[in-house]
Amino acid sequence: MTLTSRLRKVIATMHLLDLDAILIKDETDIRYLSEYPAHDAWLLVTSRQVFYITDGRYIEEVKKSLRGITPVQFKRSLSEEVVTCCIRARVRRLGVDERHISVEQYKRLKVLSRKNISLVKCNGCVDELRAVKEPGELKLMRQAFDLNLKAYRVIKSFLKPGVSEIDILHRLEAFIRKEGVAFAFDPIIASGPNSAYPHARVTGRRLCRKEPVLIDLGIDYKGYKSDLTRMFFLDTMPTSYRDVLTIVRDAQEEAFKVIRPGIMARDVDAVVRNYLKKYGLEERFTHSLGHGVGLDVHEAPRLSVMSDAVLKENMVCTVEPGVYFPGKYGIRLEEMVLITPKGCEVFCGDHDQ
Amino acid sequence: MTLTSRLRKVIATMHLLDLDAILIKDETDIRYLSEYPAHDAWLLVTSRQVFYITDGRYIEEVKKSLRGITPVQFKRSLSEEVVTCCIRARVRRLGVDERHISVEQYKRLKVLSRKNISLVKCNGCVDELRAVKEPGELKLMRQAFDLNLKAYRVIKSFLKPGVSEIDILHRLEAFIRKEGVAFAFDPIIASGPNSAYPHARVTGRRLCRKEPVLIDLGIDYKGYKSDLTRMFFLDTMPTSYRDVLTIVRDAQEEAFKVIRPGIMARDVDAVVRNYLKKYGLEERFTHSLGHGVGLDVHEAPRLSVMSDAVLKENMVCTVEPGVYFPGKYGIRLEEMVLITPKGCEVFCGDHDQ
Repeated sequence: MTLTSRLRKVIATMHLLDLDAILIKDETDIRYLSEYPAHDAWLLVTSRQVFYITDGRYIEEVKKSLRGITPVQFKRSLSEEVVTCCIRARVRRLGVDERHISVEQYKRLKVLSRKNISLVKCNGCVDELRAVKEPGELKLMRQAFDLNLKAYRVIKSFLKPGVSEIDILHRLEAFIRKEGVAFAFDPIIASGPNSAYPHARVTGRRLCRKEPVLIDLGIDYKGYKSDLTRMFFLDTMPTSYRDVLTIVRDAQEEAFKVIRPGIMARDVDAVVRNYLKKYGLEERFTHSLGHGVGLDVHEAPRLSVMSDAVLKENMVCTVEPGVYFPGKYGIRLEEMVLITPKGCEVFCGDHDQ
Repeated sequence: MTLTSRLRKVIATMHLLDLDAILIKDETDIRYLSEYPAHDAWLLVTSRQVFYITDGRYIEEVKKSLRGITPVQFKRSLSEEVVTCCIRARVRRLGVDERHISVEQYKRLKVLSRKNISLVKCNGCVDELRAVKEPGELKLMRQAFDLNLKAYRVIKSFLKPGVSEIDILHRLEAFIRKEGVAFAFDPIIASGPNSAYPHARVTGRRLCRKEPVLIDLGIDYKGYKSDLTRMFFLDTMPTSYRDVLTIVRDAQEEAFKVIRPGIMARDVDAVVRNYLKKYGLEERFTHSLGHGVGLDVHEAPRLSVMSDAVLKENMVCTVEPGVYFPGKYGIRLEEMVLITPKGCEVFCGDHDQ
């Protein structure tokens, strides 16, 4: 059996933790490791064999597509098949990601294995691999990013007073259809006071002069995501708005200056929060600074107060400070950065030229 | 505080189970109970107050939209806020759906409450409510269904040799855009041998004469879903194919005959499986017979061998027998039925005329 380097790394983690097997339940993790999309499937990694366990609806397609992984069709339930495979492979210590397994599934595995298998907490071992991007992944992400910029160019010329948020959404839908891609998430298109809601839903509201428009858009290119937020303004900005915009942009720049391998994600978040504090805006920054992007639009590392993550070379994450004034407006600026050996590179449009 | 009858029913269940509160984590359950979409939100139902706990990104919108429910913005984490609310409301026994809560969240609640709160298994109490549809819900589902039929009429005239599966998908996308609705799930469009995969992905394969095309399509109309599968054939059917089609249709009819309040869902599944057995086709029927439809495209009751569900009046479920011949073709026929006082009514196109 020839395993990919991704699976070999999972097996190495397994040995480090003295486990006989690891159960992978997250669909994106399974896609990452098997290089095949997963629906109602679990991956069981043992040192001798990797099992892709699924049901009758998917098994024929799976058989055609997997390389080096054994497809298994479960008869009664995923849990029972996992236990059967574990018993056959003499698994005593099975690693599970406690964030991905429900209490019900956990209890079932315990009962079915008659307590012969110990379930050992093993959180985030695939997250850590996924967070550090391979060259092939970066290429796809840059393509998603380029399409994202292209979409913003299209939208910029489309914005006029009287055009509604829904009209903008339809224009974006036409764009992604033409390009043969998908949205990474439901776009946020928030005009005027709607921009004060960080996750506003698209409404029929029409754009007016002297108001900002916040657009948060991501593209899914062959599974890999981009995520960018842009602010537009249909007229000359009032000084008060421009001042806040400058503060948010400068706060973002402060983050770019400190991002490098070895820094803690929460320290980057703190740099931005402290910068906003100088202007009395820290209470207006109601979400975290950013997140990793890749096969999922939100993945490791999280750039937040609570994060224990340490940034590493070849991670890609968003930096998105925002300030919100309910009833008035909000400003969010979001860029994607690649962590380089000594700092970071902000994704920009001309990298391929 | 005026609570909806849906919330009052949850509180009644809570009292029946001798619980002080129930924690609702499933997004669709929260949407159903709060009549407001949920993202990163939990609902905590106590007999005195219902809390909608979310973060700073959503709180302003939530405050505008909720009726009779207290919005709470959590500071550090959902779990901590739940425990704080529970302590304030003197909750001793907290019901949780063990299918929806991860082992990690469960352990955190235990630790944070210093074991002062017992977590009590309370699975499916909202599923049971959601399974039985109210008149307003049925109206929306019939509209989703009508649009589903309309989409099939559009597609029927579009199918020609040379048209690809992807072309059909694009035609369907244009349809839903025009109607201002969404797909309930990624449509399955499987021509010729692709139809042998119950959950085939759409490919660039072009339709040929003398081959079946399986299309499994659902519409999302204001949150409510429809789900129907149709078989098309671009020419006169060969006798062998027509014979199998007749058997599958007759198997489906057998299900319609027995569906009524009080019957066990697994007995309906068994009726179809036994019918197919007469023709040696039971091994070809590799999935379950059907599922409830509503705010989720798959919800209670499940019509499968393993199901403990008993059918009740005003449930809506799919009946979708299928037989698959890998390398050759597959046939699935899927209808939606409403369970009536004495039997069932198959959704059909003329109910509003």
